Amino acid sequence: MQKLQNIKGMRDHLPPAMLLRQYIINTLIGVFERYGFEPLSTPVLEYAEVLEGKLGDDEKLIYRFEDHGGRKLALRYDQTVPLARVVAQYSGQITLPWRRYAVGASYRGERPARGRYREFWQADVDIVGSHSPLADAEIVAVLSDGLEALGFPTFTTLLNHRQVLGGIARVSGLDEEAAGGIYRAIDKLDKIGAEGVREELRHSGVDQGCADRILEMVLLEGSSEDTLQALRQHLHDDARAVAALDNLEDILRGLEDMGIAPARYCLSPRLARGLSYYTGAVFETISSHWPQGSLLGGGRYDDLIGMFAGQRVATVGLAFGVERLHDVMEELGLGPRNRTTAQVFVTVFGAEQRVASLQLARELRAAGVPVMTALEPESPLGKQLKEADRKGVRYALVLGPDELSRSEVLVKDLASGEQRGVAREAVAEALR
Amino acid sequence: MQKLQNIKGMRDHLPPAMLLRQYIINTLIGVFERYGFEPLSTPVLEYAEVLEGKLGDDEKLIYRFEDHGGRKLALRYDQTVPLARVVAQYSGQITLPWRRYAVGASYRGERPARGRYREFWQADVDIVGSHSPLADAEIVAVLSDGLEALGFPTFTTLLNHRQVLGGIARVSGLDEEAAGGIYRAIDKLDKIGAEGVREELRHSGVDQGCADRILEMVLLEGSSEDTLQALRQHLHDDARAVAALDNLEDILRGLEDMGIAPARYCLSPRLARGLSYYTGAVFETISSHWPQGSLLGGGRYDDLIGMFAGQRVATVGLAFGVERLHDVMEELGLGPRNRTTAQVFVTVFGAEQRVASLQLARELRAAGVPVMTALEPESPLGKQLKEADRKGVRYALVLGPDELSRSEVLVKDLASGEQRGVAREAVAEALR
Repeated sequence: MQKLQNIKGMRDHLPPAMLLRQYIINTLIGVFERYGFEPLSTPVLEYAEVLEGKLGDDEKLIYRFEDHGGRKLALRYDQTVPLARVVAQYSGQITLPWRRYAVGASYRGERPARGRYREFWQADVDIVGSHSPLADAEIVAVLSDGLEALGFPTFTTLLNHRQVLGGIARVSGLDEEAAGGIYRAIDKLDKIGAEGVREELRHSGVDQGCADRILEMVLLEGSSEDTLQALRQHLHDDARAVAALDNLEDILRGLEDMGIAPARYCLSPRLARGLSYYTGAVFETISSHWPQGSLLGGGRYDDLIGMFAGQRVATVGLAFGVERLHDVMEELGLGPRNRTTAQVFVTVFGAEQRVASLQLARELRAAGVPVMTALEPESPLGKQLKEADRKGVRYALVLGPDELSRSEVLVKDLASGEQRGVAREAVAEALR
Repeated sequence: MQKLQNIKGMRDHLPPAMLLRQYIINTLIGVFERYGFEPLSTPVLEYAEVLEGKLGDDEKLIYRFEDHGGRKLALRYDQTVPLARVVAQYSGQITLPWRRYAVGASYRGERPARGRYREFWQADVDIVGSHSPLADAEIVAVLSDGLEALGFPTFTTLLNHRQVLGGIARVSGLDEEAAGGIYRAIDKLDKIGAEGVREELRHSGVDQGCADRILEMVLLEGSSEDTLQALRQHLHDDARAVAALDNLEDILRGLEDMGIAPARYCLSPRLARGLSYYTGAVFETISSHWPQGSLLGGGRYDDLIGMFAGQRVATVGLAFGVERLHDVMEELGLGPRNRTTAQVFVTVFGAEQRVASLQLARELRAAGVPVMTALEPESPLGKQLKEADRKGVRYALVLGPDELSRSEVLVKDLASGEQRGVAREAVAEALR
């Protein structure tokens, strides 16, 4: 007997789940393209050496294998390394700045858990080759428009900058070495609270006064202008932090000029973001409707995309996680509710009505209405209606001899049980 | 130095290619859904044993490897075996007949050649769990509507049936064993001509008279009705062939009743189709604009989808090959011509016009127009226009002080060089 199961951490997506996944992906692509982002697709398989040496401890998560010729291959781990390869490999065909998006699966040999899969899809947007704060602002705008298009009622994107965090560490008397521990402690603020962070800082050897100063800055809240002002006072002696605050101010002005609603974003010095490859602004979106964690995040990472090209290539971007969005939207009841693609089931009343019924289906399709027809036109009408209902189709159409003689179609709402005759030529319009 | 190359037979798709690929995929999905087909997605990775023992000689083409835990895995070879697994694994959640589609990559360690890749995408449609000839007809209708939606000017789908070919072999005095060789010889008719086929038949031990009878039937041409009539006369002693002709007649009537144009399909006894797993009707689409080969094909295969469920599950389907369609459409000049997603580039004339320009971009996006903006608003207008042109954007918009004072926008057509002032409130409509 064959093994009828999926590989752990990899899932089949049956139609009801796929309809929501496709809605998410198509909605996001619509937003990406309205900003002029261009699609890129790279193979799921890469030479292993393309991926190696870039991921530190996470390298053990790469799926590696050898092909028939003994070549070492690896499955795509993310969409970032392939982007770096493409930027170097096709330098003559790509003009910078380049807005590119990529939608597809990546693979990681992680321990599966709720919301964490070994095959997962991401929709990445990056602006490659621009230092402009307008690029950072545009990525946040895409994030904002994307979540709005998906129907998220409220959310806020927190903004910070690597060198604001660096400055906070430096003016508190810590060296670069210790700063990493600070970020990791701050990252847990939501989980362990201010006292927990203070405790953790002291555990890692930060003295009381220093921990207090750090927490004072990190816990700053209020309007972005007020927070910016307060940080400028705290950090005015640190040139890199001052430049970072200037940069954040430019990004905030970009968001304002682009017309993004002020409630959608907020400067937040407590935002650390775990990934060490960020070099500038970082951002992360939270929602009061989803207290379990952030919806997504991203930032500026100027050192990564040029790794194959042998030069820095300024880049800012983010990834929408399709699995995360799917889980959240399902829980919040967002997105379409239809269980199937067809909106209408056209029955066949009897042999004499078969041609008329199939032609009606064709007309409706031409008018853009998705239509399923009875495949067994000889089966009784009741059985056909039952099939339509079981499939989750909303409306069943009947063209019996009475309807045909009156040039009408009987439209049955399978959800409410209501039914009414509609003039044949008006039926497409009525269903649309 | 890193290896900057793709694995042989696997390709990056840069934006211009991706735009055509996405157009193909989205157009086909639109057609599939208008017929009520539902999306299914399965992982790219399967346990190797799911794929093993189904492909005969082709099994050596499977990409196999072991994961971190020593489990034997394989990359998806096609969308058919996963469909069979899903039908058995989720029998409680799936009601038959089931119209399912699947779009995605499969992997084969084939020798790469023009048009043959090791990573390739297919868009599969299958109707699972129906013997009805209307199911066969619907698959051909989807094929027809799909190619029409993609803009193919002329094409014909040839229809045949496995048991018509079987009957031709049997009434010519050949046994089932020899029949396979006949199909392979007939399959080459277009390449080697009637005399070549005659030669090949005689080489494989078929005597002159027998080869003549086979060729007489196989070369029948004309209207489907005439061909059907002639085949009925030749094959009336072979019960299975007669049943097959009845089935083909029902399928042809289904196509007629569904309103598919008669020029789009044709009964053709010479159509063999190589794959041995077909059990009933087979079809293949050719076009006079593409003499190099067929565009796609499919058929009924009742023995395959039930292989995990342990019972026959009647199924008919086909696969659109995205690579093939892409190559043909590019050669025939079909599909969209745009080199980028953005239709409009909004420039920033100067610091004073920045807000108005970015707001204009936002308004256009809200109206559904894809818009790219200048990321370096301080750079000279000429440089911004050059960037727009290099990106392949058709229109550049300028909001200078004159335009602002007149509540106008200057619309420059970068292809023709023409430019004109358009009232601000009319610009979205003018560009749509």
